[in-house]
Amino acid sequence: MVHEMTTKDGAPFDRVQLESLMRRRLFYTPSFDIYGGVSGLYDYGPPGCALQNNIVTTWREHFVLKENMLEVDCTMLTPHEVLKTSGHVDKFADWMCKDPDTGEIFRADHLVEEVLESRLKGDKQARGQTVAVDEEDPKKKKKKVKNITAVKLDHAVVTEYEEVLAKIDNYSGEELGLLMEKYDIKNPATNGKLDPPMAFNLMFQTSIGPSSNLAGYLRPETAQGQFVNFQKLLEFNQQSMPFASASIGKSFRNEISPRAGLLRVREFLMAEIEHFVDPEGGKKHPRFDEVKDVELELLNREVQLSGKTTVETTKIGTAVETGIVDNETLGYFLARIQLFLLKLGIDQKKIRFRQHMANEMAHYAADCWDAELLTSYGWIECVGCADRSAYDLTVHMKKTGAPLVVREPRKEPLKIEEWQVELNKKEFGPKFKKDGKRVEAAIDALSQELREKLSLDLEKEGKIVVDVAGVGDGKVEVPKELITIEKRTRVENVREYTPNVIEPSFGIGRILYVLCEHVYWTRKEDEARGILSFPPTVAPTKVLIVPLSSHDDFKPFVRTLSDKLADIGISSRVDDSGASIGKRYSRNDELGTPLGITIDFQSVKDNSFTLRDRDSTKQVRASLDDICHAISNLVNGREHWDGVFARLPEFKGQEVD
Amino acid sequence: MVHEMTTKDGAPFDRVQLESLMRRRLFYTPSFDIYGGVSGLYDYGPPGCALQNNIVTTWREHFVLKENMLEVDCTMLTPHEVLKTSGHVDKFADWMCKDPDTGEIFRADHLVEEVLESRLKGDKQARGQTVAVDEEDPKKKKKKVKNITAVKLDHAVVTEYEEVLAKIDNYSGEELGLLMEKYDIKNPATNGKLDPPMAFNLMFQTSIGPSSNLAGYLRPETAQGQFVNFQKLLEFNQQSMPFASASIGKSFRNEISPRAGLLRVREFLMAEIEHFVDPEGGKKHPRFDEVKDVELELLNREVQLSGKTTVETTKIGTAVETGIVDNETLGYFLARIQLFLLKLGIDQKKIRFRQHMANEMAHYAADCWDAELLTSYGWIECVGCADRSAYDLTVHMKKTGAPLVVREPRKEPLKIEEWQVELNKKEFGPKFKKDGKRVEAAIDALSQELREKLSLDLEKEGKIVVDVAGVGDGKVEVPKELITIEKRTRVENVREYTPNVIEPSFGIGRILYVLCEHVYWTRKEDEARGILSFPPTVAPTKVLIVPLSSHDDFKPFVRTLSDKLADIGISSRVDDSGASIGKRYSRNDELGTPLGITIDFQSVKDNSFTLRDRDSTKQVRASLDDICHAISNLVNGREHWDGVFARLPEFKGQEVD
Repeated sequence: MVHEMTTKDGAPFDRVQLESLMRRRLFYTPSFDIYGGVSGLYDYGPPGCALQNNIVTTWREHFVLKENMLEVDCTMLTPHEVLKTSGHVDKFADWMCKDPDTGEIFRADHLVEEVLESRLKGDKQARGQTVAVDEEDPKKKKKKVKNITAVKLDHAVVTEYEEVLAKIDNYSGEELGLLMEKYDIKNPATNGKLDPPMAFNLMFQTSIGPSSNLAGYLRPETAQGQFVNFQKLLEFNQQSMPFASASIGKSFRNEISPRAGLLRVREFLMAEIEHFVDPEGGKKHPRFDEVKDVELELLNREVQLSGKTTVETTKIGTAVETGIVDNETLGYFLARIQLFLLKLGIDQKKIRFRQHMANEMAHYAADCWDAELLTSYGWIECVGCADRSAYDLTVHMKKTGAPLVVREPRKEPLKIEEWQVELNKKEFGPKFKKDGKRVEAAIDALSQELREKLSLDLEKEGKIVVDVAGVGDGKVEVPKELITIEKRTRVENVREYTPNVIEPSFGIGRILYVLCEHVYWTRKEDEARGILSFPPTVAPTKVLIVPLSSHDDFKPFVRTLSDKLADIGISSRVDDSGASIGKRYSRNDELGTPLGITIDFQSVKDNSFTLRDRDSTKQVRASLDDICHAISNLVNGREHWDGVFARLPEFKGQEVD
Repeated sequence: MVHEMTTKDGAPFDRVQLESLMRRRLFYTPSFDIYGGVSGLYDYGPPGCALQNNIVTTWREHFVLKENMLEVDCTMLTPHEVLKTSGHVDKFADWMCKDPDTGEIFRADHLVEEVLESRLKGDKQARGQTVAVDEEDPKKKKKKVKNITAVKLDHAVVTEYEEVLAKIDNYSGEELGLLMEKYDIKNPATNGKLDPPMAFNLMFQTSIGPSSNLAGYLRPETAQGQFVNFQKLLEFNQQSMPFASASIGKSFRNEISPRAGLLRVREFLMAEIEHFVDPEGGKKHPRFDEVKDVELELLNREVQLSGKTTVETTKIGTAVETGIVDNETLGYFLARIQLFLLKLGIDQKKIRFRQHMANEMAHYAADCWDAELLTSYGWIECVGCADRSAYDLTVHMKKTGAPLVVREPRKEPLKIEEWQVELNKKEFGPKFKKDGKRVEAAIDALSQELREKLSLDLEKEGKIVVDVAGVGDGKVEVPKELITIEKRTRVENVREYTPNVIEPSFGIGRILYVLCEHVYWTRKEDEARGILSFPPTVAPTKVLIVPLSSHDDFKPFVRTLSDKLADIGISSRVDDSGASIGKRYSRNDELGTPLGITIDFQSVKDNSFTLRDRDSTKQVRASLDDICHAISNLVNGREHWDGVFARLPEFKGQEVD
C-alpha cells in the first residue's frame, strides 16, 4: 500500500518545497558546490549543524547518560586485517557492471530488477491492464529504465521473471551475470553489451604510513572499534555484565550511485550502541519493566512472508512474551528507540518496526528489527536494531587469540562427566616420531561419542584405529599400551562465555532529514512560506532577538538579552536587518526557531519585552526576568505555552508587514 | 632554557606514572591493540571520550554560542581539485629517504639534524666539554642516532654544521639530498646508503565512487570546507561583516613516524574558527574592549631572532597598540584562547604565545601566533592563531570563478581616475584575425603606468608597440586607428573585496593530553595513586555514587540518586563493587571525578547522604535535596567548595580502608 505523506496538520506534503527551504536556509548544501560538487557528499550549514548537535546531545542524554553506557571514540582509519576478520573485506560489497563502450556503471541487481519489472509492466500494458506506479521504494526512484514497451510475454516467462524478482537480493555476482545473459539484459540507453558483474567493495581504501604497505579502510560502521576493545571495556566496567558501549562518529560507504538526497550518502554520522549480554537465561534486561507497556507498531517476518505490510500495535511486553520479539534486551531497545524518536519530534503515526527477512540481514546478524519512518520516499530505515549474536567477538578472538570472553565464578561448581583421553607420552613419541603431533591432534579432536565408541574398541581389541589425514594411508593404529580412554568427572569453577551483542544503530543524518519532513507545514494564509516546528530541545536556535529597527537605543538591550541567554546556556540569534518584523519572523519560522523576543520602544521605557510562539504566532509581554524564566522553562521542557499564556499577559501588535 | 615540569603543587612531574594511569583507567588506548596496534592511532575509552566531549562542549559555548559563530559540518572526504587549489597537494609534504636494503624510512630533515647534532656533540666530547641533554623538543625524543662518537671536527666544519642546523626547516628535498651526500649521511644503524629524498604528501589518499577516477583525500584541516562555502555563509549572515564560521571534526595527517603519544597522531579532532574580516581599517574587532586588559605571556619574532625565549607579560591592548600583535582581531582571539584554556583547567603559568618565524609558517599564512603549553615534552603548540590573509578565498575564486567576495554599497561613491583603453573592434578583429584575442588580452593587462606611457607614444608616433608572447616576433604594432588611450573618471558605487581570514585552530587531542599533565598530582601520603583535578565542568564523570556495601537496602537509593542527577543533566557512575570505600574513592580520584556521594546506614534511616570533595577529601552530610543542589552549584560553577563547607555540616567517617 502506498502511504500518502501528509504534513502534521494533514495537508499534502510537498517535498520540493521543503528541500528548497532546507537548501535556501543552509540546513545543508552539496559539498564543494563551487567545484561542481561530489555526489553523495553534503555539508551541514549553521541550522543543520546545530540541529545535528542537538540530536546528538539528546541521544547522549537518552542513552549514554541515562544508562551509564561506556562511550568510546575510536579511529575511522582501520587496518585491513580487522575488516578482513569482521567479514567486511569479503562481504561488504555490491555487484556492478561496466559498459565497456560508454564507461557507465550499473549496480547489477538494480539493473536486472528494473529491466524485468519494466518488461512485466510492458506485458500488462500489452494486455490492456493498468500499470500501478510504485512510489514506495527509494532504491527505485531514479530509474535507469525509463521507457516501458508494451510487449506481451509468455505466461511461463512472466512466472519466471516474478520468481527472479522475489529472490533478487539473494543472487551472487555470477548468478546475476547468468541472468543478464539469459534474459539479454544490456545497457538500457544504448543497448550495448555490459561486462560481467564485478564485486565492488563499498569501503573507501587508503594506505597508512609512508611505506604504503599497510592497507586500511575508512570504517563502514563504528562497531568494530568497540568490539576490539571489548576486553578493556569489560575490565573498566569492573567485570560486571551486562553492559553497553556506545559511539558517535562518522562512517563511510562508497555507494555506487548515491541518490535520494540526505538519505543515501557516502559519509554519514552514526550513533551505535553495542549492548553485551549473557546468551544464557533469555537475554533479560534489568530495566525492561520500565518500558514493557510502550506500544509499538510491529511488522514481523511472518506477515511480510504472506506478502502483507499490515502492522500490529503491540505492547513490547506482550511482543516479548509471545515471542514476536525474541528477548527482553531486544525489546527494551526497540521501546527506547521509539521514546527517543518521539523526544526529537518524530511523528508517532509515522513510525513502524519491521523485522528483517532472513535473506536481507547483514552477514553478522542473527535477527534484526528496523525502526522505519514514513517519508515522501516511502518507509525508510533510520535505526537498525540487530542481534549480532557472538559473531564479531568470536571471529576477532579466533584471529588474534585475545580472550574476548567473560569469566564468571560459578555460584555452584559445575560437574561435567566426560570421556577423557590420556596418552602414554613416553612411548607415544618414539613410536610415531615426526607424525606424533598430527596423531595427537587427531585424537584430541575426537568427539565425546567417538571416544565412547573407541573405549569399547580398546577394551575388545586392545587397540583403536583413528583417521589421521596425511599420515600413512590415513588410518593410524594406536595400541592400548599408548592410550587410556575413561569416563571421568571434571569440576568447572569458572564459567567462560562469549557475550552476545544487541546493536541499536542510528543513522543520524537520516533521522535529521526525516524529522524535517515530519515537522514541516505551511500556514493556510501563507503557503509559500514553510514552518519547521521543531521541539525547543532540538531546534537549531532557541530564540530570535528582533529589535524593532536598527535604532541605537535598542542596541544595549540586544547585547543584554543575548548575553543573559548565553549565560543560561540558550542559543539565540539577533536579526537586526532592515526587513519588517513579519519578514524576520517568517525567516525564523523556516529556520524552526521556536521563540522570538521583540525589543520595541516600550522595552526602552520599561525594560519589558514580547515573547512570540512560532506555531501559534501568539505573543506575551513581560519583564526581562519573566521572559528569560519562561524561555528557560519552555526550552527545558518544564512548561508548555499553555502555562505561559495563562501566566503572562497576551500582547497584540507589531507583527504586521 | 629547559623548563622542569612540576605538578600543580610543585612536586616533580612523573610522566611514566601519568601515562600508566591514563592507560590503566582507559582514558586512551592504542587502536586495534589486539591486532598489534597501528602507530599514531589511539582510541579514547569512556573517561577520555567524556573528557573530550566536555572540552568540545566548553569550546562550543565559549566561542560558537557566545559569539554567534556559524558552525558548519563539512565532509572529510575532499576531492583532489580542492586541495590542489589550496596548495596542499603540492606543499603539504615532508621529505623522506628510503634505505633500499632494509626498507627503513627516514624523515630527511630530522635525519640530517640528528646526525649533525650527534657529530657536534662528539666533537665536544672529544674536546672534553660537557654535553647537555636537550629535553625540550619532542621532535627529537626518539632519536635514530643513539651513539655519539667522540671525534674532533675542524672549526670550519663546526661552523658549517651550526649554520645548516639553524636553517634546517628551510631546505628543499634536493638541498637535503645534497647535504646528505656532502656530509656523508647514511642509515645510522647499518651505514647503508639511502635513496635521495622524495616528497611524501601527508594526506591520506582514496578514490571516490566506483569508477576510481575521482581522486580524493581525507582533509588535513577543516578549514577548506568553510572556505568553499564562504559565499553561502555570507548570504546566511545576511551579507553582514565581519562574521566567523566554525567547525569541529576529525582531520588526518599521514605522519611519516608518529611519536610522543597523543601529541602527534594520524587522526585527530580539531576545532577551527575562520573569522572573516575586512582587510581595510586595521582589522578591528567589535568586542576587543572586553578583553583588552587580559595579560598574555608573549614571545615575539624579534626576541626569538636574537636567540632568546624570554617571554614578556603584556596586556593584549598594549600589544596591539604597540604593534607586537598586528591587529585587534588577532589580539582578540589570542586573549579569548587563553580564557578558554583557563576555563578547562590549564595552568596559567604554563601558557605562552609564540609568534612564528617567517620560515616556519604554513604556505597560506601571513602571520601566526601559537598558544604553546608547557609539558613534560617541552613547550607544545596546542592552538594556532594564523592570519591566512585573503590567500584561500583568492585561490578558490580564481580556480572556480565563484565570487568569494563581499560587495558593500559605498556610503560615498568612489571616483577613480584611470587610464582607460578602448579598441576599435570593427577594424581590430579583421586586422589581427586569429591573434586578435591574444593581442586584446595583452592590452587589457597593461598597467596604469604603461598605459600612460603608451598614450604618449600614440600621440607622438601614431602607433604603439605591445609585447604579445607567441604572436609574430613577440612585438605587435597597433596603429592609432584601432586604439584610444585616455585618462577618464570611473565611479564605483559598490566596494568589492576579498575578506581576510583570522584562524584560531585548536588541536583538541593535544589540549586534552596537556590538561591531564597540568591537573595531575599525588597526595604526600599515597604517592602511588594519582589524582586528576579536573574542574567539574570538564571532568569525565561529575559524581560517583558509592553504596557502603552491596546490601539490598542501598539499592533503591542508588537508583533514586542516579536518576535524579541524570534529570538535572549531571552524569554519575555507581561503584557498588566489593572494594573498600577508600579504594573506590582512590579509583575515582584517578578518573578525576570531583564529587562522591556515599550511601550508608544513616541514609537508609534519614535519607541523608555524604558528599566528598576529591581534592581535599573532606565531606559534608545533608539531605537528598541539599546534596543535589550543592552538586548542581559546584558543577555549573555557581558555588565553590568553600561555600558548601560553610553551609553544610562537615562529616568525618567512612573513608578508611
